[in-house]
Amino acid sequence: MRGTAWRQALWAVLLSLLAAAASAKTLPLPDGLVALNSPQGEQALVRSPAKAAYWELSLQFVTQKTQSFCGVASMVMVLNAAGVPAPPTPELEPYRVFTQDNILNEKTEAILPQSTIARQGITLDQLGGLVQSFGLTASVHHAADGSLAAFRDAAREQLAVPGRYVLVNYLRRAIGQERGGHISPLAAYDADSDSFLILDVARYKYPPVWVKAAALFDAMNTPDSDNGNRSRGYVLIGGGP
Amino acid sequence: MRGTAWRQALWAVLLSLLAAAASAKTLPLPDGLVALNSPQGEQALVRSPAKAAYWELSLQFVTQKTQSFCGVASMVMVLNAAGVPAPPTPELEPYRVFTQDNILNEKTEAILPQSTIARQGITLDQLGGLVQSFGLTASVHHAADGSLAAFRDAAREQLAVPGRYVLVNYLRRAIGQERGGHISPLAAYDADSDSFLILDVARYKYPPVWVKAAALFDAMNTPDSDNGNRSRGYVLIGGGP
Repeated sequence: MRGTAWRQALWAVLLSLLAAAASAKTLPLPDGLVALNSPQGEQALVRSPAKAAYWELSLQFVTQKTQSFCGVASMVMVLNAAGVPAPPTPELEPYRVFTQDNILNEKTEAILPQSTIARQGITLDQLGGLVQSFGLTASVHHAADGSLAAFRDAAREQLAVPGRYVLVNYLRRAIGQERGGHISPLAAYDADSDSFLILDVARYKYPPVWVKAAALFDAMNTPDSDNGNRSRGYVLIGGGP
Repeated sequence: MRGTAWRQALWAVLLSLLAAAASAKTLPLPDGLVALNSPQGEQALVRSPAKAAYWELSLQFVTQKTQSFCGVASMVMVLNAAGVPAPPTPELEPYRVFTQDNILNEKTEAILPQSTIARQGITLDQLGGLVQSFGLTASVHHAADGSLAAFRDAAREQLAVPGRYVLVNYLRRAIGQERGGHISPLAAYDADSDSFLILDVARYKYPPVWVKAAALFDAMNTPDSDNGNRSRGYVLIGGGP
């Protein structure tokens, strides 16, 4: 090996060690999922033409504050990205921003009491209703009522347009993750790998991942016992009614 | 105009309206600063060769929870990105993550009491000491003791390597922002515009911005009355001692 090759090899090893160290605190990813913070994941984002949502939502990324607050954290991200007027935020006066501490109000309480969210989280249909209560258009789609092709087309189109968002409600273990029902925003679509990027709000557990459209659809096409065994699915937010 | 041109023009207007709507809740940016979530800002990030820090820190982006917690929020981002073992996080058992509620401990209290942080925030020298207390190497650089060229070279090199970070302590009004001393992480360097990307933790106030290296250096080269009128500056984190 010439000196340059040696240096390059050493550099590659160092970089991979550092990358491993940097992600040591989240759970290992199952085969088939690609972390955004990997060379392959970064390339997919750079080449994706459908990532308007990424630029908006990544600036508003938050960690769910309790294990049942994935839906609440996802809504915080969307409402801040969409520029919906936030309620007073005492610690930040005169500025305002949606947080997981101020987003729930009288209207949301009428749709779904905070005590229920604390116990079992938010179902797909409740999520649609909660988003609408903030004045955004939101259409709820149960996976079992549609198809992979319809989901792929609708979500890809949505992610390419500023001011539009997709929240997905899926069963983690169906894509090899720990473990139950979960909600997070999508951020981009990559045609080369036919994958969607999930900005997972359980940042203490997993990095954002690229997941194959078919695998994500199957994980949404699972019965939710908290919702009368109707299937999970996705909510399209923004755009026409 | 042909039909295609009309549609393109209409599309451009719609996109700019949507972009304006999406950022309507933050303050207007002064001339010379480029928002990351603008076409120009996105292009600068895509072409930047020095953005390892961006991939790590953007996944850990948080909003400072009080107006004096910019330094605390910045440390939360760096410690999570670096994979430093986090303290117990009761709401997320068995998982752990640094938050602005659990990061301050007996060691930090000995360096700088939380009551002082609440009153006046963190100075550059205190920031270096606090970061070191978590076992990371951190070197403190007062702008007045160095030069623009030294800052540019050191920060650019740091941002290109995984596991290394730069925190900047600068006077906002020196770059035309509202208003006082502030701390946030850098995320990338763009050679074409000779600018650094600041992931501003006051997300309720400003989006991440690209700022000219010279303007940022001048804003760091300002006396801090909370630090015996020594100048502000930057902290290089990670790498050798």
